[in-house]
Amino acid sequence: MHFASDNSGPALPQVMEALSAANRGFAMAYGSDAIMDEVRAQIRDLFEAPEAAVYLVATGTAANSLALATLGQSWQTVFCSSVAHIHMDECNAPEFYSGGAKLTLVGQDDKMTAAELRASIEGEETRGVHGPQRGPVSITQVTEFGTIYTLDEISALCDVAKSYDLPVHLDGARFANAMIALGCTPAEMTWKAGVDAVSFGGTKNGCMGVEAVIFFDPKHAWEFELRRKRGAHLFSKHRYLSAQMQAYLADNAWKEAAVKANANAAHLAGGLRSIDGVSFMYPPQANLMFVAMPRAMHKRLFAAGAEYHIWSGSLEGDDPNEMVEARLVCDWSISMDEINAFLDVARG
Amino acid sequence: MHFASDNSGPALPQVMEALSAANRGFAMAYGSDAIMDEVRAQIRDLFEAPEAAVYLVATGTAANSLALATLGQSWQTVFCSSVAHIHMDECNAPEFYSGGAKLTLVGQDDKMTAAELRASIEGEETRGVHGPQRGPVSITQVTEFGTIYTLDEISALCDVAKSYDLPVHLDGARFANAMIALGCTPAEMTWKAGVDAVSFGGTKNGCMGVEAVIFFDPKHAWEFELRRKRGAHLFSKHRYLSAQMQAYLADNAWKEAAVKANANAAHLAGGLRSIDGVSFMYPPQANLMFVAMPRAMHKRLFAAGAEYHIWSGSLEGDDPNEMVEARLVCDWSISMDEINAFLDVARG
Amino acid sequence: MHFASDNSGPALPQVMEALSAANRGFAMAYGSDAIMDEVRAQIRDLFEAPEAAVYLVATGTAANSLALATLGQSWQTVFCSSVAHIHMDECNAPEFYSGGAKLTLVGQDDKMTAAELRASIEGEETRGVHGPQRGPVSITQVTEFGTIYTLDEISALCDVAKSYDLPVHLDGARFANAMIALGCTPAEMTWKAGVDAVSFGGTKNGCMGVEAVIFFDPKHAWEFELRRKRGAHLFSKHRYLSAQMQAYLADNAWKEAAVKANANAAHLAGGLRSIDGVSFMYPPQANLMFVAMPRAMHKRLFAAGAEYHIWSGSLEGDDPNEMVEARLVCDWSISMDEINAFLDVARG
Amino acid sequence: MHFASDNSGPALPQVMEALSAANRGFAMAYGSDAIMDEVRAQIRDLFEAPEAAVYLVATGTAANSLALATLGQSWQTVFCSSVAHIHMDECNAPEFYSGGAKLTLVGQDDKMTAAELRASIEGEETRGVHGPQRGPVSITQVTEFGTIYTLDEISALCDVAKSYDLPVHLDGARFANAMIALGCTPAEMTWKAGVDAVSFGGTKNGCMGVEAVIFFDPKHAWEFELRRKRGAHLFSKHRYLSAQMQAYLADNAWKEAAVKANANAAHLAGGLRSIDGVSFMYPPQANLMFVAMPRAMHKRLFAAGAEYHIWSGSLEGDDPNEMVEARLVCDWSISMDEINAFLDVARG
Repeated sequence: MHFASDNSGPALPQVMEALSAANRGFAMAYGSDAIMDEVRAQIRDLFEAPEAAVYLVATGTAANSLALATLGQSWQTVFCSSVAHIHMDECNAPEFYSGGAKLTLVGQDDKMTAAELRASIEGEETRGVHGPQRGPVSITQVTEFGTIYTLDEISALCDVAKSYDLPVHLDGARFANAMIALGCTPAEMTWKAGVDAVSFGGTKNGCMGVEAVIFFDPKHAWEFELRRKRGAHLFSKHRYLSAQMQAYLADNAWKEAAVKANANAAHLAGGLRSIDGVSFMYPPQANLMFVAMPRAMHKRLFAAGAEYHIWSGSLEGDDPNEMVEARLVCDWSISMDEINAFLDVARG
Repeated sequence: MHFASDNSGPALPQVMEALSAANRGFAMAYGSDAIMDEVRAQIRDLFEAPEAAVYLVATGTAANSLALATLGQSWQTVFCSSVAHIHMDECNAPEFYSGGAKLTLVGQDDKMTAAELRASIEGEETRGVHGPQRGPVSITQVTEFGTIYTLDEISALCDVAKSYDLPVHLDGARFANAMIALGCTPAEMTWKAGVDAVSFGGTKNGCMGVEAVIFFDPKHAWEFELRRKRGAHLFSKHRYLSAQMQAYLADNAWKEAAVKANANAAHLAGGLRSIDGVSFMYPPQANLMFVAMPRAMHKRLFAAGAEYHIWSGSLEGDDPNEMVEARLVCDWSISMDEINAFLDVARG
Repeated sequence: MHFASDNSGPALPQVMEALSAANRGFAMAYGSDAIMDEVRAQIRDLFEAPEAAVYLVATGTAANSLALATLGQSWQTVFCSSVAHIHMDECNAPEFYSGGAKLTLVGQDDKMTAAELRASIEGEETRGVHGPQRGPVSITQVTEFGTIYTLDEISALCDVAKSYDLPVHLDGARFANAMIALGCTPAEMTWKAGVDAVSFGGTKNGCMGVEAVIFFDPKHAWEFELRRKRGAHLFSKHRYLSAQMQAYLADNAWKEAAVKANANAAHLAGGLRSIDGVSFMYPPQANLMFVAMPRAMHKRLFAAGAEYHIWSGSLEGDDPNEMVEARLVCDWSISMDEINAFLDVARG
Repeated sequence: MHFASDNSGPALPQVMEALSAANRGFAMAYGSDAIMDEVRAQIRDLFEAPEAAVYLVATGTAANSLALATLGQSWQTVFCSSVAHIHMDECNAPEFYSGGAKLTLVGQDDKMTAAELRASIEGEETRGVHGPQRGPVSITQVTEFGTIYTLDEISALCDVAKSYDLPVHLDGARFANAMIALGCTPAEMTWKAGVDAVSFGGTKNGCMGVEAVIFFDPKHAWEFELRRKRGAHLFSKHRYLSAQMQAYLADNAWKEAAVKANANAAHLAGGLRSIDGVSFMYPPQANLMFVAMPRAMHKRLFAAGAEYHIWSGSLEGDDPNEMVEARLVCDWSISMDEINAFLDVARG
């Protein structure tokens, strides 16, 4: 009954097999391996972007930080949601990689609205050389609260950014989960809506540790390569990054994993919704959810071996009915049996 | 006939099996996995250092840059050989991670001598606040030219460093190859000689991509953890780093791989030495060598499919007897047959 | 009728005379001049802090950025008001000097309250290594909106900081104006309340360009010196910084200048308060104020040659009665005649 | 008898008068003062560069670091002499401002030759993404050893740089002394020879503390302004920087000061040359020199109150005839009487 994170589940069997298959003989190092050529073609094809510059790194923070540093400047401010991973969970990596850029927090909810973004942009660069200059806009899709921007919402944010000539980055650590939920194509969720660069996640959806960074305008390519190397994120035995991504994208493995993860979450959410006293902080739309449950219910679940994070509130306290919020995440690997077992314990 | 790099060979079978074995169920993320506990114990045991702080990262440049940034300050200069990997091959990563420290190049050969190091240290910090301040000393073992510091040489360098109260880092990308060649223990080659922190390589000697960073004084632990996260080098699915290192260290796999690689190189060097007109830039002592061969010999080898890097000089040119220098590297996986085939072609 | 900034007025006659007096013969460079010894003694005496480390730089942004970089770490976040100069008006200098630290904006008003500060601190470092770590607290006194923290308010903020073991910086670009308004001593407004380091402004209150940085704990001294030099803020002909500060502090010149500036502002505020349709965004407590006036009044004033900044709203627009907000600043040099002239025009 | 540095002498009377004259009424802050308009015109006129972007900062290190950061990138290496001020005397400021660029030391003497520069450039960027990339070339004129590049030598260095498409910076902390010695125009020593950006020193030649940064291509202007502000080098009361530079350039004051300084040095060098046992490390060509004198001669001079720096060797030691090297610097303000007095003592 593991709902702690899609960072703690196993990798897809296809990914492991691809690693083994790649482990034969010699291969050119540092991204010149033949599998990377295949990956580049796969991604350009999937995104209908034959010119796109495509790179692999091993962590989502590396993908985000390097992409933003490439799109912006150290004297600028990046516009993002106040709960964005780049703000909350990267220990100042975006600031480090950018050489000291600022993050401007837009709105106070899971998603930025176009109006909030416009107001935030308007609020900066009103002071000439004295204040931070306007920089990239970063959209997290799926949001940190498990909700999803519609294609229209992404377009609206990009339109605002473009009206100030600002580039747009999409943090797609859960790209597949969002795309499946929206029923759209990769291109529709990105460059067709106005996105310039994407962190395309593999790790949370069935890889060991690999993320692609995609620039739709290849002019960023060489700078990104230098930043990646300087950041110590260029792998010598790169074929093992390539192999993961190759297998992840082949035969729709990535889509099927996201379909499963989302279905698992929907099943869990459906079950929880039917339990008295359980409520959702945000409507769950992908593979994670934030749920308020009575303290006693949490205690039953932990006693039964469930694993997940308390989001706010505490298990300490006398009142068994006091509501305590949890974050529950489903990956592709969790079984319906486990979810049902969890729901059974929750029901008491 | 692949002698281009120990970065382009395959991973050990044990490492691949360990990855598969680790790929079951859920595991705590970000270094809290149970396998990492095992790795920490293995390394503390191997190094006879029960207090050591032990971390894993995926690239050698990350290990070096993060270790040096933790040991030093941005207003200091790091003392290293003029051919050190941290100077030549990391695209300013040490400068980036340290916030702009300088590198002072000591001597002009493969190894720094204690006298050269002392002279370089004396040359810095003679200008009060105006010049860079003295910072960490970094020793590359195996050197970039395939030679090895003796234990006495390491001790002598550390003694100089200590006399100025400077910390010592050892870049052990080829740690195992050096240790096997010296016939010493890990402790003897590090803290017993005066080394404070080690980049302990796995990638070049049979892993997919994993290096340990070891601080013998655990006071550096928390700062390193923050720097690793901020540098985007903390893996969420960390178990796959742990599993590689665990299998690498288990049952002497790491030593056996280095024994093989060094033996391969010795066989290659022995064969080359017996060929007229071939000479060595440096005496090969581990698993790589720099060899001067006539242009015609190179042409035969490349025509036969050999892969390696020309170090200096060029294959273009009319004179078939002109000497052109090559770098040849043997990893654990290359076969005696391939080496013999290479030698046969070289002999003409 | 110049009310645009205390950055645009002239320097005190005593300061100019001191520069001339200092311009004789040779003097040791880089802060070793004899006048600096005098300044150090003056400041230690004024602050009742015989151990304090005292340095001079030429700009307030340098003072703030270097002080915060010395007190904190690149993986931390600095707590400050959402309108703090270090956030709004320094083009990411604190981020640059700190190597990429973050700023956490506390509250939404001119001043941080202790409760807001505690809540903000509690909100950070709840995510272990993943989020930014808690760093220095920076208090702006006089605030950017012309208000003043009472001694009790400063103590309460420092108490909160100390309960988390966080250092406190005070941005005293208008230190003298605040101290005069409070009727307290320098020590009371700083270390006696719990402040660790001060940017002690001279420029806005009658100097050409000089600010002192004071650390009450001298352990920070050498690091600060290195950071100042590395930041290119160590003056070779330092005597001209020293002379300004020496003259500024001698014979209560600095206090008299602040008394004048505050009195000028009080006179201006009193006059404006008596005019129908004029209101204050914040109660003016030092030498600057934010005033809402009808558009027509602004137009009269600008037509008459008044100089000041529109803060929010615009002079463009048809409605002569619409309120438009202005920032008005008085320095020591403005005359009562000019203020009265301004008030006459305002009255219409 | 002060020959320690041209950083420790007084400012020109014209500069002090200009400061007093500027100290009237209000002036626009942050470089928008009317005097700056005049300075910009003066410099464009002097350099025959009507499009040049012109800025003022207060220290030479700021001028150099900001100029180089604007011309280059963090993943590049700057080519400079091994004794360049930017390498020896700026406590890693160029590395800090550039975000961690490297400095490649060209040659081992006072001046770089074109051949050495070409060899150094060829030595970098041979390793693709792995090594530092080629960046700006920085020429120090007057060199740190008191010698001067001829116009042909500057052109030859610039030609090499241009053949690799690298920008050229000239560190002209002693620009005037070099120009007077060469008898050339500012344009000839800079853009006509191929220089892209100049640190045009004022401080060492009669100002209190001001240096101009000049970009002949104005495309760098806005980036430089942002870097200057972010580096905390934008002065609020900028008129006092402007006034210094305005007076320095007016009526040939700067040239006359350099003529005097050079003549003083020539007189000193001539006198020393005639003393038995005195020799020069480099031929003195501007206003500073490096002189080997017997220990006993140094002792006499210091006993008589002379002030200067020992460059290498030590006054401690028994042998009165052992040679000890000194650096002697003449500014415009030292009198012939003092020089003669110094020579009398030296003669014994």
